[in-house]
Order: sequence, then C-alpha cells, then structure tokens
Amino acid sequence: MHTPTIHPLEGATALAPLIEAYRGRRPDRLPVWFMRQAGRSLPEYRAARAARADIGMLEACLDPALATEITLQPVRRHGVDAAILFSDIVIPLRLAGVEVDIAPGVGPVFAEPIRDRRGIEELVARPIEEGMFAPVTEAVRLLTAELGPIPLIGFAGAPFTLAAYMVEGRPSRDHLAARTLMHADPGLWRALADWTARLSGAFLLAQARAGASAVQLFDSWAGSLPAPDYRRLVAPASRLALAPVREARIAGGTVPTVHFGVGTAHLLPDLAGVGADVLGVDHRLSLTDAARAVPGVPLQGNIDPALLGAPWPVLAEHVHRVIEDGARAPGHVLNLGHGVPPATDPGVLTRIVDLAHA
Amino acid sequence: MHTPTIHPLEGATALAPLIEAYRGRRPDRLPVWFMRQAGRSLPEYRAARAARADIGMLEACLDPALATEITLQPVRRHGVDAAILFSDIVIPLRLAGVEVDIAPGVGPVFAEPIRDRRGIEELVARPIEEGMFAPVTEAVRLLTAELGPIPLIGFAGAPFTLAAYMVEGRPSRDHLAARTLMHADPGLWRALADWTARLSGAFLLAQARAGASAVQLFDSWAGSLPAPDYRRLVAPASRLALAPVREARIAGGTVPTVHFGVGTAHLLPDLAGVGADVLGVDHRLSLTDAARAVPGVPLQGNIDPALLGAPWPVLAEHVHRVIEDGARAPGHVLNLGHGVPPATDPGVLTRIVDLAHA
Repeated sequence: MHTPTIHPLEGATALAPLIEAYRGRRPDRLPVWFMRQAGRSLPEYRAARAARADIGMLEACLDPALATEITLQPVRRHGVDAAILFSDIVIPLRLAGVEVDIAPGVGPVFAEPIRDRRGIEELVARPIEEGMFAPVTEAVRLLTAELGPIPLIGFAGAPFTLAAYMVEGRPSRDHLAARTLMHADPGLWRALADWTARLSGAFLLAQARAGASAVQLFDSWAGSLPAPDYRRLVAPASRLALAPVREARIAGGTVPTVHFGVGTAHLLPDLAGVGADVLGVDHRLSLTDAARAVPGVPLQGNIDPALLGAPWPVLAEHVHRVIEDGARAPGHVLNLGHGVPPATDPGVLTRIVDLAHA
Repeated sequence: MHTPTIHPLEGATALAPLIEAYRGRRPDRLPVWFMRQAGRSLPEYRAARAARADIGMLEACLDPALATEITLQPVRRHGVDAAILFSDIVIPLRLAGVEVDIAPGVGPVFAEPIRDRRGIEELVARPIEEGMFAPVTEAVRLLTAELGPIPLIGFAGAPFTLAAYMVEGRPSRDHLAARTLMHADPGLWRALADWTARLSGAFLLAQARAGASAVQLFDSWAGSLPAPDYRRLVAPASRLALAPVREARIAGGTVPTVHFGVGTAHLLPDLAGVGADVLGVDHRLSLTDAARAVPGVPLQGNIDPALLGAPWPVLAEHVHRVIEDGARAPGHVLNLGHGVPPATDPGVLTRIVDLAHA
C-alpha cells in the first residue's frame, strides 16, 4: 500500500461539480449520484456477485479488486458525478472483530446483541487502529487511480444507527432496545456510542486520507429519536465521528462531509448542528422546506424512490421539482431520498442523470 | 344479535373522562389508555391464547367470547380509562374474503400481493355489507354490557396503511410498492384506496352502532408520505373512511373520532384536516410542538415506548413532561406514542395509570 503522492482533492477532483456544490457553490453542471447506486439494480453487479458466489456480501466489500469493480459500474453506466465506495456500514465493525453478517433479505445480523454491560465493555475494549481498514483503503487507492476527475465518496454509519443494529442484534422498526438503553443506563450508552463514534471517525479519516474526496455519515435511523434525545444522547457522538475528517488538513484543505438520515423532518437543525458541511434529506420533506429549516446549508437529495417506477413524464416532472427546490440551498447535489430499490430499472437512473446534466 | 336499547354514549359513558377529553374538555381525571394494551405484555393474555392454541391470531379476534375476555384484561389489571377492542386492522379485509393471515414475528401476510389491475378489480368487486362484521359487533355488544361506565374504542386501519400491506403483500419499511402505484397509476390507486376506505368506514360505523363510544383510525404508515402526496392521494380516502361515523347520529349525537399515525411531524395539519376530532401523536414530537402545529385539536399520546424499560424515576419524569405538554391542547388523553412492546413489564403500565390519576 502507498499513500497517493497527490490527493485527488489537490488536483483531479478539486473543481469537480460535486465538490463545488458540497462547498456551497453552484457549479456549471448539477451534480448527481444515487445512494446504493452500486448494487442490485445493475445486471453487471449481479453478474459480478454471481461470479464470486463463494463469498458473502461483506467479504465482497472486503475484496479490494471486487469492491473496486462494483464501485465503478454505476459510474461507467450512468455517468454520475461521484462514485461511492461499495461497502456496508457494518464493515468497520467486522474489521474490529465484531461477529456480524448480512443476511439476504434481512440486513445486518449479529452473533449476539451487544446490549449488556459485559457485551459493551468487551466491545469498547477492542482497539481501533488505522491499519485494520487496509482492505477498504486499498480499494480507495485502486479507485482513485481509475476515477481521475470523478470524486470518490467514502462513508460510515453514524453511532446511533450502528448502535441500534448492535443492541437489537438485527434490523428493527423502532430501535426500541437501543433507545431504551440510552435512557435506562446513559453511562453505558455513552460508552457504546463513543467507541462507535471513534471507530466511524477513524474509518472516515482513513478513507479521506487514502483518496476519498468527500465522506458521508449515514444516520439512517436517527429519525426515530425525539429531538431532545437526539441532542443530548446522540449528537455528541455524531459530532465525534465527524471530527477527525473535519479537523484533518488533507490536500491542503478540508474534505467535505455530508450527514444523512431518514424521516428527519423534526430533526434537521439538529442534524445540521453536528458539524457536517452538507445535509442529505430524504423524500418526505421538500428541499424548499429543508432549506427553510437549515438556511445556508448545502443540501443533497431527494428524489422519491417510489417515483422510479412511475412513467417517465411523472418522474421527470418530480425530478424537475426537486431541482427547483434544491436551487433554494446554497449548493445542491441531486440524489434519491433513500437508496436505489433493488428492482429499479437502471435505464431510469441514466435518464435522471441526463436530465440533471441537460 | 340485538342492538342495545341504550347506546353507552347516551348514558353510561357520556361523561367518561375519555369522552370529555375527546370532545376537547378537561375532565377531573386525566384519561389514559395504551395502544396494544390488550396483548402480549400481559401473562393473562398469553394464557388465554395458549388455552386456544388451536387458533391463530385473526381467529382469536373473530371469536367474540375470547376477544371480549382479552379486551377486558387490561381494563381489570391497569384500571385504564378505555377498553380498545382486541382486533387487528386486517380483520375487515379477512371478513371481506381477502386471504390474509398474521405471521408471528412478521405481521400481516397476504396470499398474494394485490397490486395489478386484475387483483385490484377483483378486490373492489367484493361487496361490503354490515352483516359481515357480525363477529366483531357481537364482541362489541358483549363488551359494552360488561364495561358499564368505561368507554370501548373501536378501530380500523386507514386506507393507505391497509393498501400498503395489500400492495406489498407483507410489512415493508418504505411502502415503496404502494407509493409507486399511486404515482404510476393514480386511477387504479384511487379505486383501491376508495374501496378500502368504504370498508374501513363501514367497519367503524358498525362498531359505533353496536356500542363503541369512540373510534380510532390507524394510519400507521402515513409518515412515509411527503405532504403533497398525502394531501392529493391519501387524505380524500381517509376522509371517506371517517365520514360514516362523522355523519351518523348515534345516541342523539356524534361518536368522537381519533386519527393516529407514526412519524408524522411533517404531516400533522394534514392528518388533522381529514376530519377526526382528535389527533394521536407518536413519541417523536412533543405535544407542545404538536399543539402548536394543530391548535385547537385535542391530542392523544405520547409516552415514548422506549422509556417503559427505563428505571421508574426516569420514566415518571418523562410521563410528567408528557402530561405538562398535553395541557397545551384543549383536551388530552394520555397514551403511548406507539403500541405496548411485547416485552413490557405490565406493572409499569399500571404505575403510569396510577400516576395519571393521582
């Protein structure tokens, strides 16, 4: 492994439309990418996975050559303005030695829930070292060499969302076990959230140093929290997760950070308050309303994934409205309000890119 | 079967604290009940179900004697201010002949998704007749005879939530299939939503006529909708579902109606706009914020179910805050922000009732 002599942000991607928009400017071209663009919607993805049917989802993420190929697929096909690393938010947990796997059709499943004092103390005793992220940083290096002027986005799960999975042991609707823990034993919760934040923070920093031009923190389940709980029990950990990249001088400056959650209409100012440069907004709230809630913050989003299955004129009208709404923010990156559904016709995504670039 | 000579609202329950609060007044005692109070949190429920292990969940709901017993259990144990019929939102679908069952640990599962033209046309051709609700109205009659001054709440699923289950065929996180249908084929969606609304409307009216003192429309998944979609594609059907009870003269007056959804911070005025008397609010938004969003509307809620597992002083402080926040609405019925989690210690629920009544 080697550190790139020139970080992409120092050269190739410094003025990419994505980076311009993330920095609150209005590039000539509206940048667009899609959450989960590398994945099951693409036949070439399904083929690449089928060719390695011997390994599971997480092993695929940890194979630098395979992860690189899968990450590049949507860039080649759609002409999107960013690549996002093919990975999963539980990858750093796996690399830290936590027994977790992705059960098809279910999501992350842990060998056992991590919710009692013993389990959490064992977890937080695990060392966090940059070297353990090598399979991912190696993919980042392979990718940035291939991508040239197209920025690569690194990402990590936010402490609450990761903790919600660990405490429950699997996906859940209301994240009750994690939300109960934070009230039942705030000290234990803080230990869990802080370790997870340090892990995510180190993971984001490793990706940024290896060549990622931006990073995104996914707090998918933050929307289940009342605002006072978010502020008191979750925001400090999310701030901690973003801090290493925020504070690092990389390529002579900073790497833009994005913060995203689902169902966060009641939380936007608080999500914006943890220190990311850009806020990702899901489909429930218009970007006009979001821009009013967090004035001055560049926004990313928020095509409703449900519209991807509608006839093109209906979808195109919706995309036009999202673009108009996004114009109220100081910078706007077009994206979906949530991940690409697996059944999506990829041709529709290409048309959206063409429309955004027209 | 017989119609009661005197409807409870004409006598026994007319001045019950619940009904007073639903009508926007401040009774001497703060009324409290819990969504899913009749259910797995109670050992006597588990015993009653185990004694009839030969039948499934929906069959238990359709056995008037068993449903009556289960409905009464939390009233006896906790001293709550209302009984809510032990039932499920898919019961009227089952009674209309739709093949649906409750899979333990999953939720409603349909023999096949109802989402194409043929499936929806078959569905909406099914007749809706008050007689088909007999197993439920019989339970309502048995219950009101037992309950005396304690009101019974009837309920139904709102058209969007029921349609989301039918179109997906099972529970889903984002209700994408239903939300896609409404954009891809609004006419077909409207046919589905209108039939479902007429079914729920007839079901609510049958329960009210049989003796229920109030009814609640559950639109659990409405929060997944952007407000413009809710207003255009869902609200008319929800209004239609509430109309029969709203327009009926029962017991010389009207039966109060409650409307509830989850994750609706961005939708409260729209939910209140479909014509219910009372708005149920989940745990994400304080009742102070809700009262600001829908001034003049009595509110129900919104203890965070996650707090039920916290030490009593923490929970008690939270309940006190909910009661204080609720005082900003013209009427307040204390409840959870969502259903009782199955693992809840029932003693905690009794303590909340005692606290509310103190």
